[in-house]
Amino acid sequence: MKLSKSFFYTLRENAKDEDSVSSNLLVRAGMIKKSSNGMYMIMPMGKKVLAKIENIVREEMDAKDAQELLMPALIPEEVYIKSGRREVFGSNMFTMNDRYMKRYVLGPTHEELFAVAASMDGKSYKDFPYNLYQIQTKFRDETRPRYGLIRVREFIMKDAYTFDIDEAGLDEAYAKMYDAYCRIFDRMELEYKIVKADTGAMGGLLSEEYQAISGIGEDIVVGCEGCDFSSNLEITEVVDTLQDSQEEEFEIQLVETPNAKTIEEVAAFFGKEPKDFVKTLLYNVDGKIVAFCIPGDRELNETKALKLLKANEMELASFEDVEKITHARVGFAGPVGLDCPVYMDRMIKHMKNFIIGANKSDHHYVNVNLSDFTPELVADLCQVKEGDICPVCGKPLTFQHGIEVGNLFKLGTKYAQSMNLYYTDANNQLQPVWMGSYGIGLERCMAAIVEQHHDDKGIIWPKEVAPFILSIVPISLKDEKQMEIANDLYNYCTKNKYSVLLDDRNERPGVKFKDMELIGIPYRITVGRKAQEGILEFSNRYTGEKEEVSIDSIKSMIDELYKA
Amino acid sequence: MKLSKSFFYTLRENAKDEDSVSSNLLVRAGMIKKSSNGMYMIMPMGKKVLAKIENIVREEMDAKDAQELLMPALIPEEVYIKSGRREVFGSNMFTMNDRYMKRYVLGPTHEELFAVAASMDGKSYKDFPYNLYQIQTKFRDETRPRYGLIRVREFIMKDAYTFDIDEAGLDEAYAKMYDAYCRIFDRMELEYKIVKADTGAMGGLLSEEYQAISGIGEDIVVGCEGCDFSSNLEITEVVDTLQDSQEEEFEIQLVETPNAKTIEEVAAFFGKEPKDFVKTLLYNVDGKIVAFCIPGDRELNETKALKLLKANEMELASFEDVEKITHARVGFAGPVGLDCPVYMDRMIKHMKNFIIGANKSDHHYVNVNLSDFTPELVADLCQVKEGDICPVCGKPLTFQHGIEVGNLFKLGTKYAQSMNLYYTDANNQLQPVWMGSYGIGLERCMAAIVEQHHDDKGIIWPKEVAPFILSIVPISLKDEKQMEIANDLYNYCTKNKYSVLLDDRNERPGVKFKDMELIGIPYRITVGRKAQEGILEFSNRYTGEKEEVSIDSIKSMIDELYKA
Repeated sequence: MKLSKSFFYTLRENAKDEDSVSSNLLVRAGMIKKSSNGMYMIMPMGKKVLAKIENIVREEMDAKDAQELLMPALIPEEVYIKSGRREVFGSNMFTMNDRYMKRYVLGPTHEELFAVAASMDGKSYKDFPYNLYQIQTKFRDETRPRYGLIRVREFIMKDAYTFDIDEAGLDEAYAKMYDAYCRIFDRMELEYKIVKADTGAMGGLLSEEYQAISGIGEDIVVGCEGCDFSSNLEITEVVDTLQDSQEEEFEIQLVETPNAKTIEEVAAFFGKEPKDFVKTLLYNVDGKIVAFCIPGDRELNETKALKLLKANEMELASFEDVEKITHARVGFAGPVGLDCPVYMDRMIKHMKNFIIGANKSDHHYVNVNLSDFTPELVADLCQVKEGDICPVCGKPLTFQHGIEVGNLFKLGTKYAQSMNLYYTDANNQLQPVWMGSYGIGLERCMAAIVEQHHDDKGIIWPKEVAPFILSIVPISLKDEKQMEIANDLYNYCTKNKYSVLLDDRNERPGVKFKDMELIGIPYRITVGRKAQEGILEFSNRYTGEKEEVSIDSIKSMIDELYKA
Repeated sequence: MKLSKSFFYTLRENAKDEDSVSSNLLVRAGMIKKSSNGMYMIMPMGKKVLAKIENIVREEMDAKDAQELLMPALIPEEVYIKSGRREVFGSNMFTMNDRYMKRYVLGPTHEELFAVAASMDGKSYKDFPYNLYQIQTKFRDETRPRYGLIRVREFIMKDAYTFDIDEAGLDEAYAKMYDAYCRIFDRMELEYKIVKADTGAMGGLLSEEYQAISGIGEDIVVGCEGCDFSSNLEITEVVDTLQDSQEEEFEIQLVETPNAKTIEEVAAFFGKEPKDFVKTLLYNVDGKIVAFCIPGDRELNETKALKLLKANEMELASFEDVEKITHARVGFAGPVGLDCPVYMDRMIKHMKNFIIGANKSDHHYVNVNLSDFTPELVADLCQVKEGDICPVCGKPLTFQHGIEVGNLFKLGTKYAQSMNLYYTDANNQLQPVWMGSYGIGLERCMAAIVEQHHDDKGIIWPKEVAPFILSIVPISLKDEKQMEIANDLYNYCTKNKYSVLLDDRNERPGVKFKDMELIGIPYRITVGRKAQEGILEFSNRYTGEKEEVSIDSIKSMIDELYKA
């Protein structure tokens, strides 16, 4: 591509309103441009990167005999009602009426429609297995779009679905996708971890996530100092290492605690530590108020809480609801005499004579024991902390932030049963199909790559996803010799179908160099004054090295770049 | 691709609910499947065709230095309000509120957003021209989706937009796209005509359409026996060849015409012909009732009417409105004494002593003349008829049906002005950018190709869009020699990256042959009994010819297929 003939621009200044390194650099490099909240235009230079990402994904899917198809984005709402997921997605779905007042949604993921597609045919066990996928636009009305391409409301997803006659088949199909995903993210040169995760809105038997390690990541990837344990914070078990308290149980006692509301303030009042408390958190879970009791030095894990209650959504109860249930100001909830179900973390079972809110403003109970209240259920409800014990080997756990770039789900027969996807087995009996579901967010990959591959000059694209592998930069457009050499190299590259950019703009060399660095082209050949003597400059964006190269050897050097 | 390992099916029976040859064949071939009204899943075999169509389009766009990008489908409604097109599209747009009650639409076409993208930069005249395009999903809430992929509510469109500093630049950009489109449709082997058309919802200076000739086409392509005149019926001028009537003007007279309502019945009553009448049609145009008067033997052209009134939408007035305006039952409207604006076709100027409705039930006026009423405007309002006179050469006009597969628009500076897209000229003055807009509907191309390329056995894909060029069909899976040869040929093809299908299903030969014919694979190699003797069968789907070919020459024959 010749820049002089192209729509091309870069921005010198940092982008306003962008809250991540990747979105700032992508905007400045003229690769993306925000069009509204959580939506971006992918500009020509960015589209080249996206196309390369798409190509990697397609190649690796095809290598596993997956077959590409294309679904509509508009789906009748009744499809999701049938599967029971309309409520699960809630207001995360964009919904509308068509002109005849029929309800439609914009598909956030396509398990249902793929089950419909597959149910048309392939009714005999002999027709299995198969793997169908699409690279298609998804829509999710996120509460808080952020970090540029990382959390958007419209994006391209590769979503694949496997269809098998039994669990062993699903395991095999899943293993193939696991392998394909490793190859895909390796080719993108992403540093990632594969972690066990919550099955969430998908449901099913197992989920694993590919987490690109990055400080900006919204997920916490829990690892271990001692073994290869790896898990999303959401589902990591807290190993219960507490010993039963050997204290004698005292009698529960109401104490006035004026001017003390936070755990720290109340602890100071009593001369105790947070771990001597039991915190009570009131939540609105699918419209019902419930209480969660956890040790005072711990945080509640909402994913575990939702799972325990088999619920879809939860948020902290409103001030009004808290005051209604506790008959006190916010901050004094406790499990004794509370007028709602209480779910208790199992570590509390070891505690004696602990302190709780008294459901009375400015009052706490001390010397509380398990006999003083009756929880609905006891379970692991706490967030794991860095330094907690690894559930596998007992060594300390470590935390890293991750961007979820891909996920795998063993769905089992859940969707087959709700969407009527059955096959006849060898005995002519109807059996439900075993499905798997596998997603990759393409724009999010693009952003994650930039988060991991940049420096203060701009983006440093890995070779397989770079918009161009090489730029050719003549210093002076007026110098005939320079232009002749630059054009000759450019023509050589295009003839060989090498992806190359000729910066033949009438700009100062410094501007051109800065732009080539900002947009992250891996290699640059500068055709400057020494071109007269047959000397060119070759720069490597990865190492920052520059070297002088004889014009005689430059073409074989170029060949090497594209061969590797 | 090996069929035994693929998701593949065909249907023996004609598809229910499909109202065109192409949709029936595409459904039966397992290439598409309806998912809801006006929406289809493109199944794996169909996706291969669509990808080839996409590839042709991309290659020819890139050859004209157009640059690909990607826009969101969700666009804030205010963008279309700004350009004035929100009303133009009306209920053809899908609209919704997001979770924060902000209004969004699903883009039916992207002139506005491309103007926004282009306005970010390229502010100097030196930065022009450029051509930006995308291959992206469009949404239109059609009143009556029909004919399978021909009129759908969600489809992939290649939409390109050119940006120039003056009309001469736009002319050049337009000519390049004209040329690219010819190449694109030639490569798809579509028989098409390029016709002048209404600029419609786009507005602008000029529009031309690429009409694939087909009996099912919803557009009428007007041609000429004598010259290369070519125009969409919508905008074709009616050449006014009427001579002024030489009759003496009589006095207008009210006549009771019991039991006569249609023109034919009233004509019979008076012993006259339809051409002696003036028809009065009452319409609701953008919410206002108006009347159109045309000669009794002509039809109203609504496109001309809309254009004349600078209106967006028109439909026949309701019975209630007609009765309110005419104070009579429906069927007796006439321009004399009518309480709404009257628009008159210019051919009526030649007429004398004509018959009209009297705005009184069961009554007509006879001997009506131009002095008896006052039209608001006089213009060409009639639909041209086959056999009318060509406006260029005077020979008779001919009609063909066409499917609009592509269109070109010279937009001029309309969008630049509404969307604030200006550049600074050499004198540092702000000037509006000249835009062009160019669309191709990809699924519609797929359907049009099938409408033109099929026989009673199924689809006959042109080579450049066939899902596979060649199928290899072994007759007996149990015959080791047959399978060895079939696999060897298959491996030879895949090694050479030839697109090939191996039908290794355990099915009867007749089933396999029928399927390969139905899905329209151009060439077939059958490996049957004579394979033992080194003889294979080669079938050509285009000619229907079969020939025996020696196994020694088959690979060079295959090479030829893929070379051509």
